[in-house]
Amino acid sequence: MASAHDSRSILLVNGPNLNLLGTREPHLYGSTTLADVERLVTEAAAAHGISVSCVQSNHEGVLIDAIHEARGRDIGIIINPGAFTHTSVALHDALAAVEVPAVEVHITNIHRREAFRHHSYVSPVAEVVIAGAGPRGYLMAVDHLAHR
Amino acid sequence: MASAHDSRSILLVNGPNLNLLGTREPHLYGSTTLADVERLVTEAAAAHGISVSCVQSNHEGVLIDAIHEARGRDIGIIINPGAFTHTSVALHDALAAVEVPAVEVHITNIHRREAFRHHSYVSPVAEVVIAGAGPRGYLMAVDHLAHR
Amino acid sequence: MASAHDSRSILLVNGPNLNLLGTREPHLYGSTTLADVERLVTEAAAAHGISVSCVQSNHEGVLIDAIHEARGRDIGIIINPGAFTHTSVALHDALAAVEVPAVEVHITNIHRREAFRHHSYVSPVAEVVIAGAGPRGYLMAVDHLAHR
Amino acid sequence: MASAHDSRSILLVNGPNLNLLGTREPHLYGSTTLADVERLVTEAAAAHGISVSCVQSNHEGVLIDAIHEARGRDIGIIINPGAFTHTSVALHDALAAVEVPAVEVHITNIHRREAFRHHSYVSPVAEVVIAGAGPRGYLMAVDHLAHR
Amino acid sequence: MASAHDSRSILLVNGPNLNLLGTREPHLYGSTTLADVERLVTEAAAAHGISVSCVQSNHEGVLIDAIHEARGRDIGIIINPGAFTHTSVALHDALAAVEVPAVEVHITNIHRREAFRHHSYVSPVAEVVIAGAGPRGYLMAVDHLAHR
Amino acid sequence: MASAHDSRSILLVNGPNLNLLGTREPHLYGSTTLADVERLVTEAAAAHGISVSCVQSNHEGVLIDAIHEARGRDIGIIINPGAFTHTSVALHDALAAVEVPAVEVHITNIHRREAFRHHSYVSPVAEVVIAGAGPRGYLMAVDHLAHR
Amino acid sequence: MASAHDSRSILLVNGPNLNLLGTREPHLYGSTTLADVERLVTEAAAAHGISVSCVQSNHEGVLIDAIHEARGRDIGIIINPGAFTHTSVALHDALAAVEVPAVEVHITNIHRREAFRHHSYVSPVAEVVIAGAGPRGYLMAVDHLAHR
Amino acid sequence: MASAHDSRSILLVNGPNLNLLGTREPHLYGSTTLADVERLVTEAAAAHGISVSCVQSNHEGVLIDAIHEARGRDIGIIINPGAFTHTSVALHDALAAVEVPAVEVHITNIHRREAFRHHSYVSPVAEVVIAGAGPRGYLMAVDHLAHR
Amino acid sequence: MASAHDSRSILLVNGPNLNLLGTREPHLYGSTTLADVERLVTEAAAAHGISVSCVQSNHEGVLIDAIHEARGRDIGIIINPGAFTHTSVALHDALAAVEVPAVEVHITNIHRREAFRHHSYVSPVAEVVIAGAGPRGYLMAVDHLAHR
Amino acid sequence: MASAHDSRSILLVNGPNLNLLGTREPHLYGSTTLADVERLVTEAAAAHGISVSCVQSNHEGVLIDAIHEARGRDIGIIINPGAFTHTSVALHDALAAVEVPAVEVHITNIHRREAFRHHSYVSPVAEVVIAGAGPRGYLMAVDHLAHR
Amino acid sequence: MASAHDSRSILLVNGPNLNLLGTREPHLYGSTTLADVERLVTEAAAAHGISVSCVQSNHEGVLIDAIHEARGRDIGIIINPGAFTHTSVALHDALAAVEVPAVEVHITNIHRREAFRHHSYVSPVAEVVIAGAGPRGYLMAVDHLAHR
Amino acid sequence: MASAHDSRSILLVNGPNLNLLGTREPHLYGSTTLADVERLVTEAAAAHGISVSCVQSNHEGVLIDAIHEARGRDIGIIINPGAFTHTSVALHDALAAVEVPAVEVHITNIHRREAFRHHSYVSPVAEVVIAGAGPRGYLMAVDHLAHR
Repeated sequence: MASAHDSRSILLVNGPNLNLLGTREPHLYGSTTLADVERLVTEAAAAHGISVSCVQSNHEGVLIDAIHEARGRDIGIIINPGAFTHTSVALHDALAAVEVPAVEVHITNIHRREAFRHHSYVSPVAEVVIAGAGPRGYLMAVDHLAHR
Repeated sequence: MASAHDSRSILLVNGPNLNLLGTREPHLYGSTTLADVERLVTEAAAAHGISVSCVQSNHEGVLIDAIHEARGRDIGIIINPGAFTHTSVALHDALAAVEVPAVEVHITNIHRREAFRHHSYVSPVAEVVIAGAGPRGYLMAVDHLAHR
Repeated sequence: MASAHDSRSILLVNGPNLNLLGTREPHLYGSTTLADVERLVTEAAAAHGISVSCVQSNHEGVLIDAIHEARGRDIGIIINPGAFTHTSVALHDALAAVEVPAVEVHITNIHRREAFRHHSYVSPVAEVVIAGAGPRGYLMAVDHLAHR
Repeated sequence: MASAHDSRSILLVNGPNLNLLGTREPHLYGSTTLADVERLVTEAAAAHGISVSCVQSNHEGVLIDAIHEARGRDIGIIINPGAFTHTSVALHDALAAVEVPAVEVHITNIHRREAFRHHSYVSPVAEVVIAGAGPRGYLMAVDHLAHR
Repeated sequence: MASAHDSRSILLVNGPNLNLLGTREPHLYGSTTLADVERLVTEAAAAHGISVSCVQSNHEGVLIDAIHEARGRDIGIIINPGAFTHTSVALHDALAAVEVPAVEVHITNIHRREAFRHHSYVSPVAEVVIAGAGPRGYLMAVDHLAHR
Repeated sequence: MASAHDSRSILLVNGPNLNLLGTREPHLYGSTTLADVERLVTEAAAAHGISVSCVQSNHEGVLIDAIHEARGRDIGIIINPGAFTHTSVALHDALAAVEVPAVEVHITNIHRREAFRHHSYVSPVAEVVIAGAGPRGYLMAVDHLAHR
Repeated sequence: MASAHDSRSILLVNGPNLNLLGTREPHLYGSTTLADVERLVTEAAAAHGISVSCVQSNHEGVLIDAIHEARGRDIGIIINPGAFTHTSVALHDALAAVEVPAVEVHITNIHRREAFRHHSYVSPVAEVVIAGAGPRGYLMAVDHLAHR
Repeated sequence: MASAHDSRSILLVNGPNLNLLGTREPHLYGSTTLADVERLVTEAAAAHGISVSCVQSNHEGVLIDAIHEARGRDIGIIINPGAFTHTSVALHDALAAVEVPAVEVHITNIHRREAFRHHSYVSPVAEVVIAGAGPRGYLMAVDHLAHR
Repeated sequence: MASAHDSRSILLVNGPNLNLLGTREPHLYGSTTLADVERLVTEAAAAHGISVSCVQSNHEGVLIDAIHEARGRDIGIIINPGAFTHTSVALHDALAAVEVPAVEVHITNIHRREAFRHHSYVSPVAEVVIAGAGPRGYLMAVDHLAHR
Repeated sequence: MASAHDSRSILLVNGPNLNLLGTREPHLYGSTTLADVERLVTEAAAAHGISVSCVQSNHEGVLIDAIHEARGRDIGIIINPGAFTHTSVALHDALAAVEVPAVEVHITNIHRREAFRHHSYVSPVAEVVIAGAGPRGYLMAVDHLAHR
Repeated sequence: MASAHDSRSILLVNGPNLNLLGTREPHLYGSTTLADVERLVTEAAAAHGISVSCVQSNHEGVLIDAIHEARGRDIGIIINPGAFTHTSVALHDALAAVEVPAVEVHITNIHRREAFRHHSYVSPVAEVVIAGAGPRGYLMAVDHLAHR
Repeated sequence: MASAHDSRSILLVNGPNLNLLGTREPHLYGSTTLADVERLVTEAAAAHGISVSCVQSNHEGVLIDAIHEARGRDIGIIINPGAFTHTSVALHDALAAVEVPAVEVHITNIHRREAFRHHSYVSPVAEVVIAGAGPRGYLMAVDHLAHR
């Protein structure tokens, strides 16, 4: 978990299987890697004087722990919950509990995919939801949190 | 429908009741008016050398007609379908027919509202879906279309 | 749209196919015509010193436009949304937006008819719902608005 | 069951918990008591030369017995079935059996409340359904039965 | 509750609105009255040396109380639960609790009627279910209990 | 198909797997065989001067053909459709087409078994439905048809 | 709306997006244009001495108005409701109201497409439904109306 | 199965209970018999130089066998699957397997009838679906196959 | 209804069939009788200086009446609604109306039983829900109300 | 039905359309024919000293008859019910009745196909279910039955 | 995981986000912390001579591992599964596997909250379910296990 | 994770609670332990010159990590996802991402158990699904992967 804390910070959370980004199913997800995404987000945030903590895990518990740490520390959370989007009430509760504004990002437009991807447990506790913009969606999220 | 055509152009479509934006239910929608939105989008697009045609109507047919005109003319459509989001197969078909990339924008996070607002007929034919970012969502859409 | 404005006014809205009232399926709808209904409502309201604007259209957009105009002008709306009752989120939103008390009127008892007529998108934003009283339902609505 | 029979009569039926009217949850139901309602209905009916029998009970069986007695005696039934609206097939059958025209009245607009209040077993056997008009709804019902 | 106890006895239970039998909706239910049914059942049972207790009520509680009394006393219960068929878990539980074999009888074929009449809470605790045979269904039930 | 035609006749139809009756799952179906059932029905009908044609088949088409032959010939059909109860619209249509009164018989109480056995395509076109009375149910059916 | 009235006439109604026919998604809809369809229908009807009025609109209200005009004037309506097939109770009601026999035509076989295209509000008020025959479906409709 | 093979041929398949056509429920199905239908289809096809094989059966297996034989032999199949429309995945699979274009014909408009008749397992593997045109529907099917 | 009122009091409500407790289905409900339960609750409450009114009835109306009497008198209600748990909106409304804190108790764990026992109309208006602890559940309820 | 009975035997049942195996939709089902499958199964079983009876039919009744014959004769049944998997309660009942262990085999992985193929009426009465292994699935089934 | 083992012991399991107890959403969960809960449970158990092992984790796997360890060691498990209540079949299976009696505790009354919180995968394998009693619910659970 | 890598290798994944195999609920799962299963699979694979990596975990994240490692390394995955079968979209996505053929194995026939076990998120991304064959199912999976 690379992180640098100055006066304003955000947490970038990527869920299960996103470690394979850029190499997995490129027709769906493109060729940008997770490292690229983390670098792009860090640079975009830095332009606003905001530092970024990054976490990716295939373990739901690790994501929850990371979200808990954001409480009282970060001005916002950018989260791509991956498959947990559709199944994790625990992430829903974690985001509700920490009371940090969250932006939910999906690289693909989940509404064009299988029916089980159309429902998100995260959306009701997110402030903003962005889907289908590819890696650029993360930058839109930075932009939103910087201007709030 | 105010419009100025140069080499690249986009269509901004706002659906029913959005003419009341900024005056209707401000706790939900804020105080930015439709005129503000159209001006902001036009300015943001102009910064990319893109002109904007704007249409708002409470008539589904007017929106469909406008979308048809975008075919072969515009590089993208930014659409906030308002209440038609949840009921209009005709808008779905219009967007599918014209084959112009569309960004669906909702000022509020529709997933935090009534259950009947959780399904969108537009999302399966949109490239990107942005909800809950307020008027800034329109600018994210401009940004997306400019960088495609 | 015939109208006469004095100090207190109401808007009478009739939805699709109600222009055929009195001639269409009389076993269901009786023989009172739309002109009769509009005259009866106008007379009943006049007895309370209230003027009436009347609109009927088969175009959803025309109905929405008319509802928008009621905002800040009328003390109440009497609306028989016809078939739009069951399909129009846009009418729902229009009535919610203008914040004028609305009475939803159905000539027939929609609960005795096809299942798709049992749900109304208008009822959750109406103050009062009256079904099955025939044209007299409109007069009950006048009575309600006059005594509020 | 106070009653006075002259040539024309109606039955006023109030279901469970309506004995608490005017004291229970006044933000929902207002401050008019059941005694007030029964008096108002009796007076309004008297103006048409109609007498009124009143029954309120928390016992479904008592309501069914009362409806049976209306058969061949009363010109109409005004019924607020309270919670039995949503659960009582037996009331449905009783009203169907006695073949006396019924007006179903709800003080609140049940369509703005919990989902389980949106379905009525009584509506398919009522002639008229009125919801949300407060105690005035009962008077509309009297009016309807008097003019049939 | 007329009853005559000899060595073997059965309980005949008729639910809500069946007191109107023979006079209510004759196209559905025929012209045999409840008194006729009770007499026919008593005579048929007597032919097998079985006495009959009869109860009809529009009060669910009265029916439950009567079923409780059958426990350890009667060799069988013949029950036409009327509208309670479709809504009463309490009757279900009463029949399960007393452990007396029950035959569920419906005068009409409930499967040809409204969808809400197709489910019975009583059937899973009945031994036999007979529907559509008119009053003769009760006699089939006597026959079944006599020959068990 | 053993049959003897005198002035009045009925058709006894047994569906799939009922050839195994008396040997299959005796805890569910008892020890009476199909031959026993056919003999019992034939004897009971003979007592009313009615002859019986018997058919059992595991082939839906054979059952339909047999039902067609009953048209204009038999005064009634006794049918235990077995598993076809829950799946055969074709049997539904055959029974509707021949316009011979039918009694649907099930040896077990299908409402105490798997959920998929709770719906019958035959019941809406049967006059009477009897379930759970064991082989005696067939005799009740004879009785019903004899006394119609 | 081109029209020529002689003794017998029909109305041809095409719904939203059908103005794009022949140019939109040709793998689905083929290359015949709306003008072609209107010409073919007019010629085929002329062969039977029947004139044709044609209307296409993306506005539901325009279609309803046109259907109303057919009342008492035309011997039949040929309607391809496009996307309104699946959402418009108002078209359902309009067709029911005018009591002119209608043939519903779909160029594609809607049952091979998305689930939301499998239900039609128009079918229950159409006399005939034809799907998947391409533009020839319109000619089958002419044929049907000519021979009624 | 009467058949005459020349260079082009089609298979006409009629499902269960259609052997009763013209005699069964004439208010629904009219008075044309199956023999009439088979003769009309054969004559209409002959006019295009096409021969016809006819099969009707109440046995699903016979229909499947017949469809298999059409493979590589016939240019098209006209099928009225009768009640199997709604229940037979096996017919679905047979039609998909033989890869001969099929036209599904229903004499009545199945969408005006019971809900269980609104879904067809055959439609997703048919090229064209025609319902409600009576026996003429079969001729439309011939016409379609002749002009493909 | 045995009761003793001192300064603090609670109401103990037992619903239908609970009069059979200890004798009915002991494998499910154990051998403690209703009298035992009422005595145990009374003793446990007395230890906290709280008196107890007890009511058990198979009549929903009796339970509602008793709950109404608790209003402004008792500090809490302990209710085992029995079968009414799953069907009684009227009990829901009664508990909501009297605004006395309620503890819902079930002797068995209703989530291990039939699906229709998994939903409770009482739970949304109870403060606490206890299921599966046998008669001890009532004592937990006393404990909760005593320490509030 | 080729068969050779020695001391141990199994029944191989293939349902509708499987006679086309190897020639139908090879992208789904491969090029192994039914004759191949029957030969492979016979050889594999012979290696365990087990003989095989083979039946394939498009007639559900033939399959049921064959299953009945396995009773008390065969040590196991290998069944690929084809389309009947999803619709045949009769096959379910036949397999339950004969009490011979059954292995359900599907050549394709039915969970990757249309939703209506995801439910099997056979699985609840099969001992083992194998899907997606192609013709090898039959051999796995032999292996399982041989080693039980 | 603090633990002290004497002759009798129980396991206290708290699921995701319960580490924030007392600080998170106090209007829902109160101000008692997890440490408080663990201390209170330990003290209450000690009064019965029972020791307590405590585990809290946001990782489902950690909870499953802890439950496995309880097998054959503890006399009972007290579990507040938090958000896993509604999603974890794995916890269901773990509790079923270890065969240690479990008490499911929820601080809030989950039946008053979002619909997705109304179903519990844990309840069918718990002996007792307690919801809405706040931290006292844990003590009720101790009490139950001590007296079993 | 014991592993030995030679030229061809497979990954054996066992999900939550399978560490208890052989000791947990033996009437369901038998007495073979996980160590037995891993040894049997390793031996069977060795016979084909294939090595095996084994992983079992109650942590979904550990399983996902292991699956990721199989990418580009193993020729196949044998996975018994245990309870995650029914809830884990993340496992679905992991298997889809690594593009290694997977065989899903269940020791029991999940279709004979609770309804929530009838749906698998893994099956749509597995090549083969085997259920109910006990530990032998794993060997069938080895056999399948060895012969692909």
